[in-house]
Amino acid sequence: MAPLRHNAGMNRETHCDLPIGVFDSGVGGLTVLKAIQEELPLENLVYLGDTARLPYGTKSPASIERYATQAAAKLREQGIKALVVACNTASAVALAALRAQMADVPVIGVIGPGATAAVAAKPGGKHLVLATEATVGLRAYRAAISERDPGAEIQEQACEMLVSLAEEGWSNGDIARAIVRRYLDEAAGGSPDTIILGCTHFPLLKDTIRDIAGDGIVVVDSASTTARVVREVLETGGITRKSDSPGSLRLLATDGATRFARVGGQFLGRDLSHRDVELVDL
Amino acid sequence: MAPLRHNAGMNRETHCDLPIGVFDSGVGGLTVLKAIQEELPLENLVYLGDTARLPYGTKSPASIERYATQAAAKLREQGIKALVVACNTASAVALAALRAQMADVPVIGVIGPGATAAVAAKPGGKHLVLATEATVGLRAYRAAISERDPGAEIQEQACEMLVSLAEEGWSNGDIARAIVRRYLDEAAGGSPDTIILGCTHFPLLKDTIRDIAGDGIVVVDSASTTARVVREVLETGGITRKSDSPGSLRLLATDGATRFARVGGQFLGRDLSHRDVELVDL
Repeated sequence: MAPLRHNAGMNRETHCDLPIGVFDSGVGGLTVLKAIQEELPLENLVYLGDTARLPYGTKSPASIERYATQAAAKLREQGIKALVVACNTASAVALAALRAQMADVPVIGVIGPGATAAVAAKPGGKHLVLATEATVGLRAYRAAISERDPGAEIQEQACEMLVSLAEEGWSNGDIARAIVRRYLDEAAGGSPDTIILGCTHFPLLKDTIRDIAGDGIVVVDSASTTARVVREVLETGGITRKSDSPGSLRLLATDGATRFARVGGQFLGRDLSHRDVELVDL
Repeated sequence: MAPLRHNAGMNRETHCDLPIGVFDSGVGGLTVLKAIQEELPLENLVYLGDTARLPYGTKSPASIERYATQAAAKLREQGIKALVVACNTASAVALAALRAQMADVPVIGVIGPGATAAVAAKPGGKHLVLATEATVGLRAYRAAISERDPGAEIQEQACEMLVSLAEEGWSNGDIARAIVRRYLDEAAGGSPDTIILGCTHFPLLKDTIRDIAGDGIVVVDSASTTARVVREVLETGGITRKSDSPGSLRLLATDGATRFARVGGQFLGRDLSHRDVELVDL
């Protein structure tokens, strides 16, 4: 990573007060935002969900890169000190383009931190990646894990129904358990050492997945692993916020404030109103 | 409906050989296409799935109208004798605009036929509409039923998980049964007389829904009711195809031919390859 510079004409303290920008195609990235809030409660945060153009997973790589750079430009306009790409598809497809675009702002994706955590938990181990069909198709976790541990064994399982379960607010209970069990059965081929939650929606299902998977399997939550990497990046760059008061939060979306508030509230774990969501154009 | 005219410079026989255009935001409308094939096996058909821009349900009405008119223009370019809007969202939002645009080509939506069939099955009855959150939000079935039967009682239930069930190919079995039961319980308030399948994905779940709902409840499948309206419109206009050979089928999509083929095959009830799908730009 290039050494961090501060915004021109801004002293270090003011720079540290700038928010961290978090971007996703929809509400799923709010699990990453929540993990960052828990890891770094003093940080100011601004979240942008590109709800008008979701899902990214079914779009072409060129479109995804264009959408991601437009979203990043919008967050940059607000003034941010770091960018978190809380979207697996954009992390897989557009990270290099975003790093080139953002220059002096560190850009953190969700795939690298998840892969690092899984490999650390079990070197030479067997990893099961649960993700959307789009992420599996991009083979991004496979590449990231192999790069970190050429001896690792990797299996990827598309689990579209887990996305709807999380959005419907049915993350616990018999239906969730039956669906998780079915996907783990479909992925069979011997018990894995780790299960990587390779979709931003899946941390909501972590308890159910852990419960069905059973003891001895490490469940890697890429929201919390990404939050820890954000902390490391800010500390390394000397740009953590120092304050006695908790950080602020702004929520931006490109469409559907009401749905964003209703579903997003489940992801953040607190009630949101459509008035908490600012609509923006990209 | 305006009297049907034939394309300039084309005799009646050639006009009758033109395909029926069927349009949806994705693959769901293939249930309507399949019902039309069963109802009218001699008709040539051309299907357009606007997979690059799905889902329409989360877009603004202005965007939906723009997308729908672009899709209709693309089908019109191919030469069609009728247009079926096999998408609940587009039927709710853009039918008037499409009828103005298409002028001499009859335009048939999916909401009117479903509402007509439900009201015919039980005048003054109690109707439960199962639909996506977007369709429920548009209150389109409520309006269409009330218009046909002011004494009808109408309840609408959003059932997002049924969409993923159908796309995942899990339309039967314990998980499907548990999910359908939960939605019917949530919609409680006394047993309805009819259940209207107000989403093009739901005909795949018809057996499960009928089974859970129990005897005495009429399940209105808007795919087959729409197909019957298409037959009436063609016969009334004298433009049914006369032939000894079955009709042809072309499948167009705006993105993702592989996924279209895989999921669409389940909807059509036969294997499709990505080579069966032509990609087009709108």
